[in-house]
Amino acid sequence: MQELKKVAVIMGSDSDLPVVKGCLTTLKEFGVPFEVHVCSAHRTPGKAAAFAKSAAENGFGVLIAAAGMAAHLAGAMAAQSVLPVIGIPVKSAAFGGLDALLSTVQMPSGIPVATVAVDGAKNAAFLSIQILALGNAELTQKLLDYKQSMADGVEKKDMALQTEVEKL
Amino acid sequence: MQELKKVAVIMGSDSDLPVVKGCLTTLKEFGVPFEVHVCSAHRTPGKAAAFAKSAAENGFGVLIAAAGMAAHLAGAMAAQSVLPVIGIPVKSAAFGGLDALLSTVQMPSGIPVATVAVDGAKNAAFLSIQILALGNAELTQKLLDYKQSMADGVEKKDMALQTEVEKL
Amino acid sequence: MQELKKVAVIMGSDSDLPVVKGCLTTLKEFGVPFEVHVCSAHRTPGKAAAFAKSAAENGFGVLIAAAGMAAHLAGAMAAQSVLPVIGIPVKSAAFGGLDALLSTVQMPSGIPVATVAVDGAKNAAFLSIQILALGNAELTQKLLDYKQSMADGVEKKDMALQTEVEKL
Amino acid sequence: MQELKKVAVIMGSDSDLPVVKGCLTTLKEFGVPFEVHVCSAHRTPGKAAAFAKSAAENGFGVLIAAAGMAAHLAGAMAAQSVLPVIGIPVKSAAFGGLDALLSTVQMPSGIPVATVAVDGAKNAAFLSIQILALGNAELTQKLLDYKQSMADGVEKKDMALQTEVEKL
Amino acid sequence: MQELKKVAVIMGSDSDLPVVKGCLTTLKEFGVPFEVHVCSAHRTPGKAAAFAKSAAENGFGVLIAAAGMAAHLAGAMAAQSVLPVIGIPVKSAAFGGLDALLSTVQMPSGIPVATVAVDGAKNAAFLSIQILALGNAELTQKLLDYKQSMADGVEKKDMALQTEVEKL
Amino acid sequence: MQELKKVAVIMGSDSDLPVVKGCLTTLKEFGVPFEVHVCSAHRTPGKAAAFAKSAAENGFGVLIAAAGMAAHLAGAMAAQSVLPVIGIPVKSAAFGGLDALLSTVQMPSGIPVATVAVDGAKNAAFLSIQILALGNAELTQKLLDYKQSMADGVEKKDMALQTEVEKL
Amino acid sequence: MQELKKVAVIMGSDSDLPVVKGCLTTLKEFGVPFEVHVCSAHRTPGKAAAFAKSAAENGFGVLIAAAGMAAHLAGAMAAQSVLPVIGIPVKSAAFGGLDALLSTVQMPSGIPVATVAVDGAKNAAFLSIQILALGNAELTQKLLDYKQSMADGVEKKDMALQTEVEKL
Amino acid sequence: MQELKKVAVIMGSDSDLPVVKGCLTTLKEFGVPFEVHVCSAHRTPGKAAAFAKSAAENGFGVLIAAAGMAAHLAGAMAAQSVLPVIGIPVKSAAFGGLDALLSTVQMPSGIPVATVAVDGAKNAAFLSIQILALGNAELTQKLLDYKQSMADGVEKKDMALQTEVEKL
Repeated sequence: MQELKKVAVIMGSDSDLPVVKGCLTTLKEFGVPFEVHVCSAHRTPGKAAAFAKSAAENGFGVLIAAAGMAAHLAGAMAAQSVLPVIGIPVKSAAFGGLDALLSTVQMPSGIPVATVAVDGAKNAAFLSIQILALGNAELTQKLLDYKQSMADGVEKKDMALQTEVEKL
Repeated sequence: MQELKKVAVIMGSDSDLPVVKGCLTTLKEFGVPFEVHVCSAHRTPGKAAAFAKSAAENGFGVLIAAAGMAAHLAGAMAAQSVLPVIGIPVKSAAFGGLDALLSTVQMPSGIPVATVAVDGAKNAAFLSIQILALGNAELTQKLLDYKQSMADGVEKKDMALQTEVEKL
Repeated sequence: MQELKKVAVIMGSDSDLPVVKGCLTTLKEFGVPFEVHVCSAHRTPGKAAAFAKSAAENGFGVLIAAAGMAAHLAGAMAAQSVLPVIGIPVKSAAFGGLDALLSTVQMPSGIPVATVAVDGAKNAAFLSIQILALGNAELTQKLLDYKQSMADGVEKKDMALQTEVEKL
Repeated sequence: MQELKKVAVIMGSDSDLPVVKGCLTTLKEFGVPFEVHVCSAHRTPGKAAAFAKSAAENGFGVLIAAAGMAAHLAGAMAAQSVLPVIGIPVKSAAFGGLDALLSTVQMPSGIPVATVAVDGAKNAAFLSIQILALGNAELTQKLLDYKQSMADGVEKKDMALQTEVEKL
Repeated sequence: MQELKKVAVIMGSDSDLPVVKGCLTTLKEFGVPFEVHVCSAHRTPGKAAAFAKSAAENGFGVLIAAAGMAAHLAGAMAAQSVLPVIGIPVKSAAFGGLDALLSTVQMPSGIPVATVAVDGAKNAAFLSIQILALGNAELTQKLLDYKQSMADGVEKKDMALQTEVEKL
Repeated sequence: MQELKKVAVIMGSDSDLPVVKGCLTTLKEFGVPFEVHVCSAHRTPGKAAAFAKSAAENGFGVLIAAAGMAAHLAGAMAAQSVLPVIGIPVKSAAFGGLDALLSTVQMPSGIPVATVAVDGAKNAAFLSIQILALGNAELTQKLLDYKQSMADGVEKKDMALQTEVEKL
Repeated sequence: MQELKKVAVIMGSDSDLPVVKGCLTTLKEFGVPFEVHVCSAHRTPGKAAAFAKSAAENGFGVLIAAAGMAAHLAGAMAAQSVLPVIGIPVKSAAFGGLDALLSTVQMPSGIPVATVAVDGAKNAAFLSIQILALGNAELTQKLLDYKQSMADGVEKKDMALQTEVEKL
Repeated sequence: MQELKKVAVIMGSDSDLPVVKGCLTTLKEFGVPFEVHVCSAHRTPGKAAAFAKSAAENGFGVLIAAAGMAAHLAGAMAAQSVLPVIGIPVKSAAFGGLDALLSTVQMPSGIPVATVAVDGAKNAAFLSIQILALGNAELTQKLLDYKQSMADGVEKKDMALQTEVEKL
């Protein structure tokens, strides 16, 4: 899979790392090359814009942006690139992440952000892998294997549950 | 662009067509091949599952699902495929689309739905085109041209605004 | 009550067990036969569909589904069966369960889900018992006895309160 | 189906009739006997309580209550009966029905209300029919036929959509 | 103040006592006679109705009802009495008390519930005292004194703040 | 009833009159003396404060304040008086009245506002009448008569419904 | 007042003009120089950034930004300037403006946006005038005069109300 | 910077100090003179009004008000002054600060409150400094320096992140 484009994982603040970690480990697990950066739409707007603008020519295929509160990061990158941009709304103290969710998903026509669940960092990784897997049989197979392993996991849990329920 | 994979646009009810239209015209405008179907997660669950399951081998690259209220359609398709699935939450009478948004975006780990804004059908199209454009220079150029045309449009509106404001 | 149909209690994830436990103990207390399974609308969609489709012929009378976030499980089962389906929206980290509630209750016409309160697992059990008790005098009597015992409990607490209040 | 128990459809105000109509026509269509009453938890609390208390011995098998705002009607009836009670939250001017939904669904342990979607009157009927159909082969068959007819309707709409889309 | 009518403080569950305590201590502090009871709109509906119906002739002047979730208690009492009824929405696990607030305040025309803040038990007491103080000079003076003491308290805190701020 | 204290009905803007009208006609119907004023917490704060401060000595027994958006009027009057203050949250364009409801009801300890439903002007009148009726047998009887007439109205509507339902 | 700095009024789309008009007419009324532009954080991000970056040296003292949905415009300008930035959240079809409000107000530490009410364009103007009036006696006097005129307006409406109420 | 006007920081309760502290330390850091007071819109309304009314002549240039729940403090001060008033909505137990946010931001036309994020005390300070910095080159430079230091901080965190990510 040497020809895979890279995934850029950008977080608005290093305090988002505990949430974003699930994204990074998933990308690693699937052998997808990635870079990760702290880069703020509000504190380093120029850098965020420049990164997004040159992302395609720098070998990136998907941009993932994680931010909380008035979460502008994903939208700011989508404004500068025609690469698919995935937004992870990060839960903060107030509003349970509703502020970040609405700030991320309610984008105007022409500049979409592919939004995943609040704190849904793993799914941002899976979505980026699904995108990169289009026409890549090896990566597609890995996704199919993972899907099967999830199903198997449910089966195992179902069996474990039966013994636990008997004790009730 | 003959080698482009198809986009499937699935709507849960034919009453969603007025919202979905913007998606279809955008796909047409960009010359992206697509199929559109009415297919309900609740009324034709078997057909929805079968469609998603065989979508990849049937030449589809991206699945778009539009649904309102307890909007399960996108999630039901994502459960059956490792293709990227884009969800359009459709506004209905109660809750201003919040029900459809949360039902679409809050997916569990491993089965992402790339969610766009409430009634954001055009952006679902743009997102699917961005995904298909990865490694397709022609489609990428069309997206860049469109981006430029949006910017030009803003400029023109800004100029038109100046004369309108003078009349205030 | 040997002729009672069984209740199926399905949870989307084994992490829902602490919530669902109240459902199981209530069913046990009333002597209602039940089966409990982990089965996910998104990770094992085929199994969920098959279970619901054959539930009636397998001796089930009521299906109870507990799920959080984009809680599709109850709706997915209702799509495959004409048995009454009861949905328990499970509270997760964001939105206090509002996502699960709306995903469960806002079903389209023709495929109802009988929704109980967020984390209202006990009430799912009571509702299933009320349904099975129609025309079953013994089970009806148990429900009436329980209703009386709840009233008695309130009376006892009211009396206990009087002495506690005097200490204020 | 002469042995079918009756469904009681109670609405808190006659202004709820436009919403409730879908419930009544569905019950008629399925040949389920029903009574319909205006009866308010707040304006005629005694009558509401008396009705619910004697509903079982008066031949009712399911109670359906439709109410808006601080929608207490379903809960007030559930407090007086061990019959299954279905609640229809009715949308009013403020809050898009969220007030009625939460007032109906968030019942305390021991007194469930089977809640359907905001203004989901048809689904209240379907749910009551599903409950009465338990062990009634004829009514079950009608429900299965209806489910098939819904699926057929989606197929027809899908075909009609194809010609409409060609005109885009 | 021997001629003062009594205040009835009714809570839907004894688990509401920690919230309601502030109400009771305030009534005590102002020398207002009161009774406190556990009485549930759903578990002991008959008792709740009977209590409210006979409250006026039993010497009560104001009814205070505290309940959470689908908080029907205040409304159920207002349905049975023309005494002023004050509702305290109690915060529970989901929705931060929004369910209880809407269930309490959104009463239909003709049956008002005077609603205070979520968990605002002290204010329920103050409101009941304000009502009873109409035409009672002694109680009015106590309220005026308390108002003054609140203002004095703010002044003292403002002075204390100055020294604390200097340490910053 | 010549000895009745007056009710003051204050609205934050004359645009609130259509909502407040139901309050005024109800007070008239019950023969309760009242004054009505436009007086804004934000545009005429001094007048609002002065009015509330001298309300008791000017013969008022209850203050009713109607306001929308950041609805401070009721709270501002409660800050200046120990008379019972009733707040009517008025629905405006955004948020369906949730802003006005929370601004009115979430008062701090010691300064309650008796809040009624969004746009619940009639109930503000009823609540004020209930307060003034304490110890006034004539007004109490009027309230009891009205309660009975509401119940009679429901009965009549129930009868009218029967003929309407037959036509379905 | 020739030395007054200019106010920049930026709207994300020319469809915001009906809302923004109130801002422009107020600025005109107070004789405050202003420029108005259509400039989108997402469609012309470079222009928005450049405008904000050079706003101070171009003679602007306050920036006002109006935008709906995922309203990033105000935040994007605040990221590029240390001038006070005022945000007007514009109501759109879904969520009654809550999306725009949260996207505008929930800014991270160090980059404030002074947020006014949803569609509160006039108040954005007033706030900008209050800022520019600091140390400008003439403009301050205009604001004081306007404040008085608002109070006078309330008085007149109060008098007009009296005659209208007599007709009730 | 001896000619700088003072900032008044008013909090509705001394329990708001932990939130407000960030505001005070920021003002200190920038060398902006300030006074801080506990002063309640509801418990000391006269003092709050008097303070705001005379704030301009007492040398204040900006008023900052922090309050929770039905947060009237900022609005009450704005009603009495034409100085810019900044509101900090303080998060309390229920509603995650939504009550305070809406109570603060949804001000009527003519009396704006510049609202910052829930618990956004630091940003209230920054906003006040931005306002005072208009035409003050020294303070403007401090703000530009701080902006740069924020950007530098992000860069450093980005570098630190790289080493942390390698350990994953």
